[in-house]
Amino acid sequence: MTKIFNLEEIKEAVKQINLISGIENGFIAFSEGKVTVPPVGEMLFDEPPGEVHIKYGYVDEDDVYVIKIASGFYDNPAIGLSSANGVMLVFSKKTGELLAILLDEGYLTSVRTAVAGAIVAKYLAPKSIEKIGIIGTGIQARQQLEYLEKVTDCKDVLVWGRNKKHAKEYAVEMNKKGFNVSVSSDTADIGRNCNLIITTTSAAEPVLIDKHIKRGTHITAVGSDTSEKNELESLILAKADLVVTDSLEQCRSRGEIFQAWINGLISDSNVVELGNVIKDKSFHRANENQLTVADLTGVVIQDIQIAKAVYRYLNENSK
Amino acid sequence: MTKIFNLEEIKEAVKQINLISGIENGFIAFSEGKVTVPPVGEMLFDEPPGEVHIKYGYVDEDDVYVIKIASGFYDNPAIGLSSANGVMLVFSKKTGELLAILLDEGYLTSVRTAVAGAIVAKYLAPKSIEKIGIIGTGIQARQQLEYLEKVTDCKDVLVWGRNKKHAKEYAVEMNKKGFNVSVSSDTADIGRNCNLIITTTSAAEPVLIDKHIKRGTHITAVGSDTSEKNELESLILAKADLVVTDSLEQCRSRGEIFQAWINGLISDSNVVELGNVIKDKSFHRANENQLTVADLTGVVIQDIQIAKAVYRYLNENSK
Repeated sequence: MTKIFNLEEIKEAVKQINLISGIENGFIAFSEGKVTVPPVGEMLFDEPPGEVHIKYGYVDEDDVYVIKIASGFYDNPAIGLSSANGVMLVFSKKTGELLAILLDEGYLTSVRTAVAGAIVAKYLAPKSIEKIGIIGTGIQARQQLEYLEKVTDCKDVLVWGRNKKHAKEYAVEMNKKGFNVSVSSDTADIGRNCNLIITTTSAAEPVLIDKHIKRGTHITAVGSDTSEKNELESLILAKADLVVTDSLEQCRSRGEIFQAWINGLISDSNVVELGNVIKDKSFHRANENQLTVADLTGVVIQDIQIAKAVYRYLNENSK
Repeated sequence: MTKIFNLEEIKEAVKQINLISGIENGFIAFSEGKVTVPPVGEMLFDEPPGEVHIKYGYVDEDDVYVIKIASGFYDNPAIGLSSANGVMLVFSKKTGELLAILLDEGYLTSVRTAVAGAIVAKYLAPKSIEKIGIIGTGIQARQQLEYLEKVTDCKDVLVWGRNKKHAKEYAVEMNKKGFNVSVSSDTADIGRNCNLIITTTSAAEPVLIDKHIKRGTHITAVGSDTSEKNELESLILAKADLVVTDSLEQCRSRGEIFQAWINGLISDSNVVELGNVIKDKSFHRANENQLTVADLTGVVIQDIQIAKAVYRYLNENSK
């Protein structure tokens, strides 16, 4: 019997579950080659512009497989809808039965991305965080900051966005949630004042420049998921003591690492996969002077782990 | 708001809808290049043996896209479950919203395959059908016969199956549904007595041999969907006046046409796509002496059309 859970139930489950440990275990299994990830399915649309991705796979030793459908329709906000949408399906790997449908409307994709940001900060952010810098003012800018609460007590935040009004709205909204957010006039200011910076834009030209970054900073870039987008000047990656990716395979074709690589500023051998960072202490931050960068393009193991965790929680706790 | 329909509702809808015309229109659009069909997604499992296919696409001028997940777990019957399972999802191509989930458990895949068989018979079966031959005794052997009722009045049937007990059960069951089924001792007998023959097996060696087939017969093979399976001796295709495929692309890599082609007995130019048969009368049966063969490996346009039709019916008629 297929169980169907709506967005309200899913949001409640997300509040109750320790997603960090589940997704950490997923990254470790992924880096150990214990996760099967077939090629992503894709459909692109013109009128109106939109895209759909079908991501699926399983942890080899698990008894379930997960299929996620996630879409982006960029004209949606003009008609009052979110551009992102989606659904996650959990199946039995023993019988093919559809165990659960998570009608998350894209919410879990956003959460699992934010959880990955928190995991990275847990291992790579400086011990003493002066100020958190947030670049971008969208859903990820909000979610990343909220999930950082799981790994740091710092509430002081500088935000920058191309659209000043959106940046002000962001500050008002996040201040209500207990943060102390100021709007920054430029990203140079963020580089000078923050030692934990998260970039969440779809920029095609770098929004963070090497000369503004202090030693001892950790930067996580979550905005770029294509071969065109680019948030960080490649020189930052070249100067970093450690560059981390969620997927060695994906970073060869998209994201910040890809940009630095085609600019001839880093080589494959300088990059460590997040699963290996989590399990190997020698890759954790060693001192307050290191410059570290993580480039997250998103991998299906995050979807698998969050879908499983939400399904198991709701299966046990729903009426 | 996503609508969710269960198997019982879906079965009721299927009874009410004219699936033949909807799927015919789909085949025509497909053959005219008006359907977008990305590569099929696949996962294969070992313990227990199973496979999952993700098929998806859309008619270019439509406002929806469809994703179908269909699985086969071959040890399921031992624990009282059907080996086939699945679900179909209908999304808005304008916004990405999930309009409907059809919890069909694989049923609609089985129906759309049977409907394709009926469509083929409508255009290629002889006017006067002496007896219908059914080879195989599974779900498709049942469904194909039931859907032939839409295009012929002939109720006289010979069935053959590797397992005699299953063949007898088949006869008893289909006789209750108004057919007059006898069990045949071999397939030669079917070739000699039937001029409309449907093969529904997963045979790896031909179950129908050229020397047993009469002129004036139409044969539809629905069992083979891989490069290994083979139900018809290739000489039958070589001697046929017309060989029809549901997909010119697929028949180059699987099914009966692929077998005849690697045996050097037919060439690409002898094969006509079903959509072209439907819309061009010159490909319809011209006389009672023609030998015709259709090889159906299954295309996603069938899934798209049946999912749309069932969704639209249930959306208008359910509470």
